[in-house]
Amino acid sequence: MSAGSVLVAGGTGYIGSFTTLALLEAGYKVVVTDNLYNSSVEALNRIELICGKKAEFVNVDVTDEAGFDKVFEAHPDIDSVIHFAALKAVGESGEKPLDYYMVNVYGTINLLRSMVRHNVTNIVFSSSATVYGDATRFPNMIPIPEECPLGPTNPYGNTKFAVETAITDVINAQRNNAIKAGNEAEAKKWNGALLRYFNPAGAHPSGIMGEDPQGVPYNLLPLLAQVATGKREKLLVFGDDYASHDGTAIRDYIHILDLADGHLKALNYLRANNPGVRAWNLGTGKGSTVYEMIRAFSAAVGRELPYEVAPRRAGDVLNLTANANRATTELGWTPQRTLEQACEDLWLWTKNNPQGYRQQPPAELLAQLKK
Amino acid sequence: MSAGSVLVAGGTGYIGSFTTLALLEAGYKVVVTDNLYNSSVEALNRIELICGKKAEFVNVDVTDEAGFDKVFEAHPDIDSVIHFAALKAVGESGEKPLDYYMVNVYGTINLLRSMVRHNVTNIVFSSSATVYGDATRFPNMIPIPEECPLGPTNPYGNTKFAVETAITDVINAQRNNAIKAGNEAEAKKWNGALLRYFNPAGAHPSGIMGEDPQGVPYNLLPLLAQVATGKREKLLVFGDDYASHDGTAIRDYIHILDLADGHLKALNYLRANNPGVRAWNLGTGKGSTVYEMIRAFSAAVGRELPYEVAPRRAGDVLNLTANANRATTELGWTPQRTLEQACEDLWLWTKNNPQGYRQQPPAELLAQLKK
Repeated sequence: MSAGSVLVAGGTGYIGSFTTLALLEAGYKVVVTDNLYNSSVEALNRIELICGKKAEFVNVDVTDEAGFDKVFEAHPDIDSVIHFAALKAVGESGEKPLDYYMVNVYGTINLLRSMVRHNVTNIVFSSSATVYGDATRFPNMIPIPEECPLGPTNPYGNTKFAVETAITDVINAQRNNAIKAGNEAEAKKWNGALLRYFNPAGAHPSGIMGEDPQGVPYNLLPLLAQVATGKREKLLVFGDDYASHDGTAIRDYIHILDLADGHLKALNYLRANNPGVRAWNLGTGKGSTVYEMIRAFSAAVGRELPYEVAPRRAGDVLNLTANANRATTELGWTPQRTLEQACEDLWLWTKNNPQGYRQQPPAELLAQLKK
Repeated sequence: MSAGSVLVAGGTGYIGSFTTLALLEAGYKVVVTDNLYNSSVEALNRIELICGKKAEFVNVDVTDEAGFDKVFEAHPDIDSVIHFAALKAVGESGEKPLDYYMVNVYGTINLLRSMVRHNVTNIVFSSSATVYGDATRFPNMIPIPEECPLGPTNPYGNTKFAVETAITDVINAQRNNAIKAGNEAEAKKWNGALLRYFNPAGAHPSGIMGEDPQGVPYNLLPLLAQVATGKREKLLVFGDDYASHDGTAIRDYIHILDLADGHLKALNYLRANNPGVRAWNLGTGKGSTVYEMIRAFSAAVGRELPYEVAPRRAGDVLNLTANANRATTELGWTPQRTLEQACEDLWLWTKNNPQGYRQQPPAELLAQLKK
């Protein structure tokens, strides 16, 4: 039974692959596109090992003008896109902003043009809490609700913001043009979800699927994982003089399976309720300090992980925590997994796959999977 | 004597052509690119009639990936771009937003990529007061200063905002990367001017050069000009119940020659002072109501022009007036021409060129030009 057909752009990456898994498990047919710039098709094999279902893969660069056209023409049953295809390193975006504008902004313009040409009418967009910028400028808005005025503070965030406005303007225009033409049924078909997420964390509890970044990771948990495996001597804690209970910065870590489930629920909601464009935060609403994260991951690993305090980084803020009430109320989405589970799942993945997707998973994990 | 070589992208349009004239008069060599979608190369002939100098023309679509490369390769002396190439109708942007994102946003990404490839380091961007959105939400910021928080309210404004962030991010990155490489001289070469203008008005006092829009105009003065020539029965005044002295909305009209001079001064300032990226408002600081404009243009025409009051339009606001102190202080720019002159110049152009650039200018105007 198929719930429908979905294109997942950037579907071999970290969040994209877990969302593909969630879609397949829910009965969707999935076509994954990716240019494999920072990911591996092996992710799709792991998905098949876990759920017994296969996503079709097509190598498409998001900036290729004809790329999506070919996919939509070959799959006229696709009515929705979940769009992850983007560059995502905040620091790099400051050095190579044109790459970010080209891939993230032009890539989305290109995708939207192809969607309009082929009447593909729903889009779930992988936005980011980065669009809020320094939300601490609104002290009464922590945890951050979707109504918080946006104000990104780096090129990566600027590209996410530009894409949010592009999707909003395009969906609204498709709706208004259809209504002017007297076609309300057509108008309702056009919908967009802007999913602003906080800090994705963890891996699949089977231990055979997780984040497999090329190069140096730039998020706290992957860095801690490298400390645990000895690839990195110690963790640098950027600032212990913030106004939190232990002095370190507060972030909202969300288990990757919960995040993937949020994408599935958002897509279902678009298709069932035709809301037009709407933003939802996906986070736990619970903030954790850097020291709390070090303790939690150390507990999963079974030993204390070394760290050293360094000066604050420019642009970092005290507290980025989601108010995710809207997603709970409207999407029926509530994070099910704890931070401890995220740490345990990440450690299981890390210690069993030192080469990530570049090696086969251990036989004992595969054997467990079959039980 | 050449002051330098400049590419004017979109240089056959209304503001682009007057800026080209100002650059040529100031001794710059100018290469104009345009796709002639909403303009005519005849504008460049009129420029030559007026100043005796010729801009080179190359037909380039701003979204053509190789287009600017060819121009920069043929003209290695170009170190600056003044960028007008864009779609500009607010209403149309609500119906066809993807065209606006494609041309305005992607077009600029494409231009910036080509500039970086060819070490063309200064850009003067044709932004718009539209980026401020409904500035009346900050009552203490009328007239609007550049510090006013931005918040565009339509797709056209969203594209201008996205381009402002793209230019800012790219110039800052080029500077920071050069500084990290220890090359301060290289860093200083990268500069950008974001010119936010209010309502351009008027024509060349010779009567042979002016605005020549295709289709229905959407600004007050061109509409009034059509009433004066009988192409339009009467002017519709959208709302006479605003909180102004006569009930109609207040805008800041700036003579096109002053606006063009602002572009020239901004370019000179970038080249002389290396400020990095900076925004300047170009307006008179003096607001005029719709009724005042009807009276002023009626006086230029010599008879009362008919109008009718209609309901307010959604999205219109009471007052959009520039605080242009920054441009005065930093660029040494002060508008020299009155609203009455703008009306007289527009009427001279309109009555002598009923077909715009699609017919030759009257012999008597050409004869006057030679004196």
